[in-house]
Amino acid sequence: MDFLNKYASFFEKELQQNSFKLFPSNLYDPLRYFMELGGKRVRPLLTLMASELFSVPKENAIHAAVAIEFFHNFSLIHDDIMDEAPLRRGKQTVHEKWNTNGAILSGDVLLVNAYQQLALSNSKYLKEVLEIFNQIAVEVCEGQQLDMDFETMQIDEVSMDNYIEMIRLKTSVLLGGALKIGAILAGANKENAQLIYDFGENLGLAFQIQDDILDLFGDSEKFGKQIGGDIISNKKTFLVLKAVELGKEKEVESILKLIDKDKKVTTAKSKFQEWGVLEEVNNSKQYYYKKAMNALYEIKVNELLKQDLITLSNQLIDREF
Amino acid sequence: MDFLNKYASFFEKELQQNSFKLFPSNLYDPLRYFMELGGKRVRPLLTLMASELFSVPKENAIHAAVAIEFFHNFSLIHDDIMDEAPLRRGKQTVHEKWNTNGAILSGDVLLVNAYQQLALSNSKYLKEVLEIFNQIAVEVCEGQQLDMDFETMQIDEVSMDNYIEMIRLKTSVLLGGALKIGAILAGANKENAQLIYDFGENLGLAFQIQDDILDLFGDSEKFGKQIGGDIISNKKTFLVLKAVELGKEKEVESILKLIDKDKKVTTAKSKFQEWGVLEEVNNSKQYYYKKAMNALYEIKVNELLKQDLITLSNQLIDREF
Repeated sequence: MDFLNKYASFFEKELQQNSFKLFPSNLYDPLRYFMELGGKRVRPLLTLMASELFSVPKENAIHAAVAIEFFHNFSLIHDDIMDEAPLRRGKQTVHEKWNTNGAILSGDVLLVNAYQQLALSNSKYLKEVLEIFNQIAVEVCEGQQLDMDFETMQIDEVSMDNYIEMIRLKTSVLLGGALKIGAILAGANKENAQLIYDFGENLGLAFQIQDDILDLFGDSEKFGKQIGGDIISNKKTFLVLKAVELGKEKEVESILKLIDKDKKVTTAKSKFQEWGVLEEVNNSKQYYYKKAMNALYEIKVNELLKQDLITLSNQLIDREF
Repeated sequence: MDFLNKYASFFEKELQQNSFKLFPSNLYDPLRYFMELGGKRVRPLLTLMASELFSVPKENAIHAAVAIEFFHNFSLIHDDIMDEAPLRRGKQTVHEKWNTNGAILSGDVLLVNAYQQLALSNSKYLKEVLEIFNQIAVEVCEGQQLDMDFETMQIDEVSMDNYIEMIRLKTSVLLGGALKIGAILAGANKENAQLIYDFGENLGLAFQIQDDILDLFGDSEKFGKQIGGDIISNKKTFLVLKAVELGKEKEVESILKLIDKDKKVTTAKSKFQEWGVLEEVNNSKQYYYKKAMNALYEIKVNELLKQDLITLSNQLIDREF
């Protein structure tokens, strides 16, 4: 995402200036480690880009952008505990490298650090920004709870609507909120702030669907994760639920029962293509992508200012990693 | 604490009006359960009393008081996981009744709920109140980390100063912050806000020392916990560290090595009295209590207005539960 360098290098520089305390080291070392694992930094870049969309320099939204990234990383640290994930971005997760207690507490303090960053925002908009941030933070927790609830349910007990609501909460609202906060801090009016939120929320849904696709159909080299991890762990992804929706419930259940992991992944891949699942899921992705673009289109600012967000959106939903 | 009924019943009523959402039930049921376990509600009452100290009705600080109590309960839920505590207030802890993942996530959302309450405060003071809240939240996490760090250290590696710093962070700053936030919301000036913080911080130290005393010398019926839990689990409490400070390191180590729990508790009790440890610890408690009272004395408001806080303070440090 070369064109993003303007935002990305600015953001990384700011992150480095916000270094964590040295003591207690068992509390802050995990945060230094985790934040240095990197990641795409999509969410904070959205905050910065939302500010520039409304013709206010990105510097104005930098603390909120850091807050958003801290929040995202807090949620990853805690999610990794709950999912018992050994790896994140190809490196050990915090609870693996330290221990669960350390990961709980480091995550907690990172969430508070996010609020500390947020408190540095322009006082004029602080209450509004805080309310949006709180709202999305609650929703992300609710999304994670639904995701865990789904684990113990049968595939016919989770409807596509349930799944979309789960990913909306767990993933999309944070993209919407990141943008809305950048817009509010740039003095955007209510209507535009809502539109950019809608853009982000729908983009987030397309983004998550792409994530589900990549998990099975991605290139392991580029994706950086084991291919088929979701299907191996019997996760109810968009693909699985779409297959059920297409009347393949019994067949999907047979696939999920396969013991041999390679065979399970290979079978799912070929069957999901054969049944038209992949095509349908790509259609759904396009549906939300278009909704996002429509919302962006309606925002009343010079069209030229939207170009960065459009380019980023395209890269996000066509990404191979 | 009958005289506190004015504050307590007002606060409980407000808590009940702030009921948690019903869905996702696995996220919010644990919070309903945990908040209903009760507790002394000391911290939010301090917030309300600080408001009235500066002649502003307690209603003005109610959302901040709820925020403080939510934060306190968030920290208890997560601490209970880390300490592997089976019981809290005589009932199952959240991670025992549900599971660890549920306790992590419910705690997380409760922390966010605290910030939602805080955001309802008077906008005029929001930035300042948020900054204080963030500061104490960070410090409470740091205190919990130090507490965990101490567990794996030898008794001669933890100095009394280290211990006091740990309980200052883990316990006292929240009492100080609860008061300071109530004062700020009542328009108190910087000097008075700092004094009431100092009052709370020192009261908190005395409060925690009393907690350490009660753990060994309390009446199990009144205390509601197993007597000697700290000594049984070889915790480096104020009593243990004071004994070491009095040159009884070898003797204390022998006590901590005793296998028979009853004998360990009985021996610690009699030796700590014989060596003058209990007396010294009581002196330390009085030392911080007096520092607290001096700070309160210096606050420039009518002395009559201080009476509720003085009564509460006396009850807290002489309490048997």
